[in-house]
Amino acid sequence: MITPWIIECRNFSTAREAIMRTGNIYQIANGYMGYRGTLDEFGPDELVGITLAGIFDQVGDAWREPVNAPNGGYTRVMLNGEPLSALSTPVESHRQSLNLRDATFERETRFSVQENLVTIRATRFLSAMRPHLGVIRYSVQCEKAAELVIETGIDANIWDLNGPHLIDLQFESKSAALLVHGRTHEAGKCVAVAEAAQIHFGEEIQRVEEKRNLRCVRLHAEAGETYSFEKFFAVATDFDKDHHPAINAALDNVQQAIGIGFDALLHEQRAAFAKKWAHCDVELEGDPQAQQALRYSIFQLLIAAPVKGSGNSIPARALSGQVYKGAVFWDTEMFMFPFFLHTMPDIAAELLRYRMHTLPGARAKAKTEGAGFKGAFYAWESQDTGEDACTYFNIGDPLTKRELRTHFRDKQVHISGDVAIAMWDYFKITGDDSLLLEGGAEVILECARFYYSYAYFKKDKNRYEILDVIGPDEYHERVNNNAFTNMVAKATFEIACELAAYLGQTHSGFLADLVRKIDIAQELPLFAEAARQLFVAEPDPETGIIEQFEGYFGLKDVPVETLKAQRIHPDEYLGAAQGLAVPTQVIKQADVVMMLNLFKDRYSAAVKKANWEYYEPRTEHGSSLSASAYAMVATEFGALDAAYAYFRMTATLDLEAKYKVYVGTVFMGGSHPAANGGAWMTVIFGFAGVRTATDRVIITPRLYKNWTRLAFPLAYKGDNFAVTITPKSIEIKAAEANRNAALFELWGLALSCAPGRKLMIERPQEHQT
Amino acid sequence: MITPWIIECRNFSTAREAIMRTGNIYQIANGYMGYRGTLDEFGPDELVGITLAGIFDQVGDAWREPVNAPNGGYTRVMLNGEPLSALSTPVESHRQSLNLRDATFERETRFSVQENLVTIRATRFLSAMRPHLGVIRYSVQCEKAAELVIETGIDANIWDLNGPHLIDLQFESKSAALLVHGRTHEAGKCVAVAEAAQIHFGEEIQRVEEKRNLRCVRLHAEAGETYSFEKFFAVATDFDKDHHPAINAALDNVQQAIGIGFDALLHEQRAAFAKKWAHCDVELEGDPQAQQALRYSIFQLLIAAPVKGSGNSIPARALSGQVYKGAVFWDTEMFMFPFFLHTMPDIAAELLRYRMHTLPGARAKAKTEGAGFKGAFYAWESQDTGEDACTYFNIGDPLTKRELRTHFRDKQVHISGDVAIAMWDYFKITGDDSLLLEGGAEVILECARFYYSYAYFKKDKNRYEILDVIGPDEYHERVNNNAFTNMVAKATFEIACELAAYLGQTHSGFLADLVRKIDIAQELPLFAEAARQLFVAEPDPETGIIEQFEGYFGLKDVPVETLKAQRIHPDEYLGAAQGLAVPTQVIKQADVVMMLNLFKDRYSAAVKKANWEYYEPRTEHGSSLSASAYAMVATEFGALDAAYAYFRMTATLDLEAKYKVYVGTVFMGGSHPAANGGAWMTVIFGFAGVRTATDRVIITPRLYKNWTRLAFPLAYKGDNFAVTITPKSIEIKAAEANRNAALFELWGLALSCAPGRKLMIERPQEHQT
Repeated sequence: MITPWIIECRNFSTAREAIMRTGNIYQIANGYMGYRGTLDEFGPDELVGITLAGIFDQVGDAWREPVNAPNGGYTRVMLNGEPLSALSTPVESHRQSLNLRDATFERETRFSVQENLVTIRATRFLSAMRPHLGVIRYSVQCEKAAELVIETGIDANIWDLNGPHLIDLQFESKSAALLVHGRTHEAGKCVAVAEAAQIHFGEEIQRVEEKRNLRCVRLHAEAGETYSFEKFFAVATDFDKDHHPAINAALDNVQQAIGIGFDALLHEQRAAFAKKWAHCDVELEGDPQAQQALRYSIFQLLIAAPVKGSGNSIPARALSGQVYKGAVFWDTEMFMFPFFLHTMPDIAAELLRYRMHTLPGARAKAKTEGAGFKGAFYAWESQDTGEDACTYFNIGDPLTKRELRTHFRDKQVHISGDVAIAMWDYFKITGDDSLLLEGGAEVILECARFYYSYAYFKKDKNRYEILDVIGPDEYHERVNNNAFTNMVAKATFEIACELAAYLGQTHSGFLADLVRKIDIAQELPLFAEAARQLFVAEPDPETGIIEQFEGYFGLKDVPVETLKAQRIHPDEYLGAAQGLAVPTQVIKQADVVMMLNLFKDRYSAAVKKANWEYYEPRTEHGSSLSASAYAMVATEFGALDAAYAYFRMTATLDLEAKYKVYVGTVFMGGSHPAANGGAWMTVIFGFAGVRTATDRVIITPRLYKNWTRLAFPLAYKGDNFAVTITPKSIEIKAAEANRNAALFELWGLALSCAPGRKLMIERPQEHQT
Repeated sequence: MITPWIIECRNFSTAREAIMRTGNIYQIANGYMGYRGTLDEFGPDELVGITLAGIFDQVGDAWREPVNAPNGGYTRVMLNGEPLSALSTPVESHRQSLNLRDATFERETRFSVQENLVTIRATRFLSAMRPHLGVIRYSVQCEKAAELVIETGIDANIWDLNGPHLIDLQFESKSAALLVHGRTHEAGKCVAVAEAAQIHFGEEIQRVEEKRNLRCVRLHAEAGETYSFEKFFAVATDFDKDHHPAINAALDNVQQAIGIGFDALLHEQRAAFAKKWAHCDVELEGDPQAQQALRYSIFQLLIAAPVKGSGNSIPARALSGQVYKGAVFWDTEMFMFPFFLHTMPDIAAELLRYRMHTLPGARAKAKTEGAGFKGAFYAWESQDTGEDACTYFNIGDPLTKRELRTHFRDKQVHISGDVAIAMWDYFKITGDDSLLLEGGAEVILECARFYYSYAYFKKDKNRYEILDVIGPDEYHERVNNNAFTNMVAKATFEIACELAAYLGQTHSGFLADLVRKIDIAQELPLFAEAARQLFVAEPDPETGIIEQFEGYFGLKDVPVETLKAQRIHPDEYLGAAQGLAVPTQVIKQADVVMMLNLFKDRYSAAVKKANWEYYEPRTEHGSSLSASAYAMVATEFGALDAAYAYFRMTATLDLEAKYKVYVGTVFMGGSHPAANGGAWMTVIFGFAGVRTATDRVIITPRLYKNWTRLAFPLAYKGDNFAVTITPKSIEIKAAEANRNAALFELWGLALSCAPGRKLMIERPQEHQT
């Protein structure tokens, strides 16, 4: 049965890989931290992880990664000295679930042990209102009377890819709270976890053993009696922007929570989530599977969204662990940002603030890569400072056990433009220029400056070119004039020019100061020339196909499966310099198709169709970014079945967790917020056909065949609208609180929608399918 | 004992690798064909090869390579039915020798077999005057009377790397000559071998067996009696420029030879070689080992030099086999050409004619590589048409058994400039502009045009750059602004300008026609700008060191031996994209040092010293081109011991044959004419300090410590001079037949040397060491 708000499973596999995948599916998070969907009694071998957002540490030569906190959610039950664990104890029944409505995780496990049946139930959530806080209700019940010991507290045995990150671990107790704290390796800053519990039964002693700070409650459990307690843990660090000392902050949080209690906290949680969902829930009738997958995807974005004021963004694996170094990629701007921009623009702004405060890192990277460039070269893998966490040898080769030289870091230059485009889109769609003045304008100008400094001029062709790059298709490194990259660079030059014109008219003093501050007066006039004279590959006049990069068409045309059959090792990377895909037309992910999606106004449906059909069979979809681009572009030329198939791929990626978990020798498991964002975009921009322009919202629906109703909120120009689409109609409802009327173009008909008003139009004859 | 003119060995190893190496050391050749130094009774397993110059064939997907001819030199002796072979028969004694004076190979083997001692003696040479002809005298002697069968004729079982190349093999006899002929696979052209012998003993029958066309001579050998016969073989093909049908040509040649006889042909051979040596022998007194090695090196160049009018050049492995596809590399212009230019300019001209007639291939390559370029992009591995024989996957990886993508073919752009520089040097040193008019001017302009079309302009730095190349150091592919390449390109632009100026003054009609023919009027003026504005890396003002390419100094500084210790397989290639050397400063061969040698006038001794000392410990010398560059540059700043060590490396490379024979999985055994040329250059340009400029010959000797006298001929501006250098003096003798006086600058003193005159000057005080 498909339940629209509940994700549930009723079996338990002890296989390590299943535990890893389940841990991803059932994770919860609150922007400050993520807590993997593991069971209370689990430890580091089961990949329990409480991953902290925006806090990084490096140990030795291993790569820098997010810090995992000691597990304050730890609890296990001993029956006559035998610990109960779903891993090792016979399980009579098991159920675990994730409630998307309020981000609570529940488990109920019945153990068949020592001729008794012991049932453990637990509910937990990470507070949406109190970012440091985790909240748990735990209970145990025995069919027959038994002697139990419940161990609960903080487990400092933690899963780390490149840890341990915390040194000088201290195990303390203070005013009935347990405390574990340590210092990070690199910065030497404190990470503290406090735990408090209200246990009204048994006999409690505190004990520290094997890096666990525990309260051990000995009790004689009566048959059929439920022994239930509430526990709270809090994580705080000296990295936190509020500057409270970590230990105090952690202790304060759990002490407050004890005072409030589980039920009130859960109530608060539900209210907070109701508010979130009101801004972004998509109701999709007629297709329960799609509804569930889409809601799960949106949920992933909600729980990963940064805490306001934190200056954090969303990493490529969100808060599901340390994979991909906890780094922020272009995924955020291109695949997650649009969701927030059109639902919760304040979070979209938070994502952009991350790029604003990492501008120094991007500037430093520009200076040091290659021959040394000007401007801002944003990191491929961006951590807290914006320095690039990506090494020059980023993929392990299972054949030789060596690290492969890859050029993600030094040649994937489109990222700067992706950031600039998002920054400008924020202004265009919200109408709010405050972010530009706060630092966004500087980001845009520095990105344009970077491209100018990266570009070469080809005198005999009288054009600028962008050489030696990696486009989205990372299987072909160091190519010239990648269609996607060149278009992104051109757009960046154009945006810089528009920005300068806008600021010149509206904030001329600010512009003058900025130009002086970053000393860009000489370069500004060149951007217009570069925008005009930068080469971009146009569709072939006969076939409509755009060459992905110079020489792509000359590569060997090999079916993807034939190519993959040539692998010596199943995890062999197909790219880098010597990968099997390199001499072929097999690409990792949407590249030209991604460009057609990003610049959809520039290309006809016929060109979209021609390129989709050409590149689709050549795409391996080795990246989670690929499917949604194919899905969206397919809706543009009416290939709705294909679009739906790719929509399903992107929307169920994390829910089904059937993804590949190794690239080369590197573990890559975790969630895929870019695919989640892609699922939302496919429904809203693709099937609903929403296009937000500077002066209007255009909606040209192309609902999938079984879909009877699609309803979603839309944030536009600081106002809120509710959109409902059926096969026969579009309804727009403007919120009462809206400040301005907005122009909607529905099936070609332009209508203004004033605050509090509702528009409803029927599908015109010519748009019937 | 070191014998100055004879190379000899007195033992015989049956190890396959020893036979391979000995076959290289003792090879003979006459420009038309090479004959490896194998024994008469050997076959394909012992790498017997008669490799034909300039004749190529491709079978299936294997690479195209030179054709080996059936072995007309085959002879074996059977004693009571048992074949005698140095491989399988007990050898009592063995001696084989190569006479450098006349290019004759001799062997004498005494077999201890069936309680008898059988001695086989043979002498063979390939006629220097008759390119098709091989000449052999063979004798057998038994200590005790015995029944012998001598089988002699043509063995069509031939060694091929990628063969067999001859199909439809026919075995015939015609007017007492044996004949084997077949068609090449690709072009279907005839290759014919005829053999004639004068055998005045025994009873002869003709027999064809196992692809051998044989005369079998049965005789009762008396004890102690020597049975000697002469045999001649001739190879002719329908590829030959003289256009005689191959079969007739082969038959005619052996029939003529029979008429002339061995002794007269040997006499002719000696006269021909005496003439060659008169133009090029270097007498080096005080160092017999160096004398022998140097003479052996010169000998290699003499036997590899192309037949006049053939339009051939010298392949990287000369005529020692099919290795490196029989292809011509930049080795020829940079390492062999200077020897011929200064000794036998007519052969230097022949080498350049090869580049003139392969200009269409270079033009075609320019059009099809990368984004498509204009002008002439000469092949990295150039065969008969100038098409590039190099594949994009040119090195096998012993670890994965896959072919590695290498960029020798598409990115090693300095070759065009190397050709242009040699073309211009010919004009400068000989004073003869006929070659320019014959096609050399067109080559130069097309090379400059290629660089212009390859170069990019960097607007913010106001300079042209040469991007994405491989320099001489092939371990670092796809680098920007390689110091060597940029200087070569700059020189090419300069030469193009000088050429246009010269032709404008002296042959303005020709120039106008040429400019019209190749439609270059628009581009010509740009070459001067490019010559001026092309970036070349200058020595660091503090250290004097020149960065090999952009970013080189940022690479890891790892000792060569440490790096090599990291290899998983001993034949693992250190370059290509993922090779161990790529992220390090370890380089394959002289690159900046090669540039300092090529443009020696541009750099001070201090800069040469600084760069030599920086790059030398970082050089792996994975190419035979490396040692002589290091040797020559070391003489420029007085490091004569180091120069001598590198001189020995280059001069003994082929004589000692201790080189590596595998690169990756590819067999690379064979001779190294570039190292041979490097040995000559090191003695003449290095230790003798000869510099030939446009208006004078400058000699600043820096003889090595034990060298008491160095005497050599020198061709300059069409005249001939004999130079004798001792530690105390320089003597110049102008030939009687000279047409002009030449200016010599000896130890800084400029003196004119008229035809027939002798100059002798003593070493001035300030040049004493």
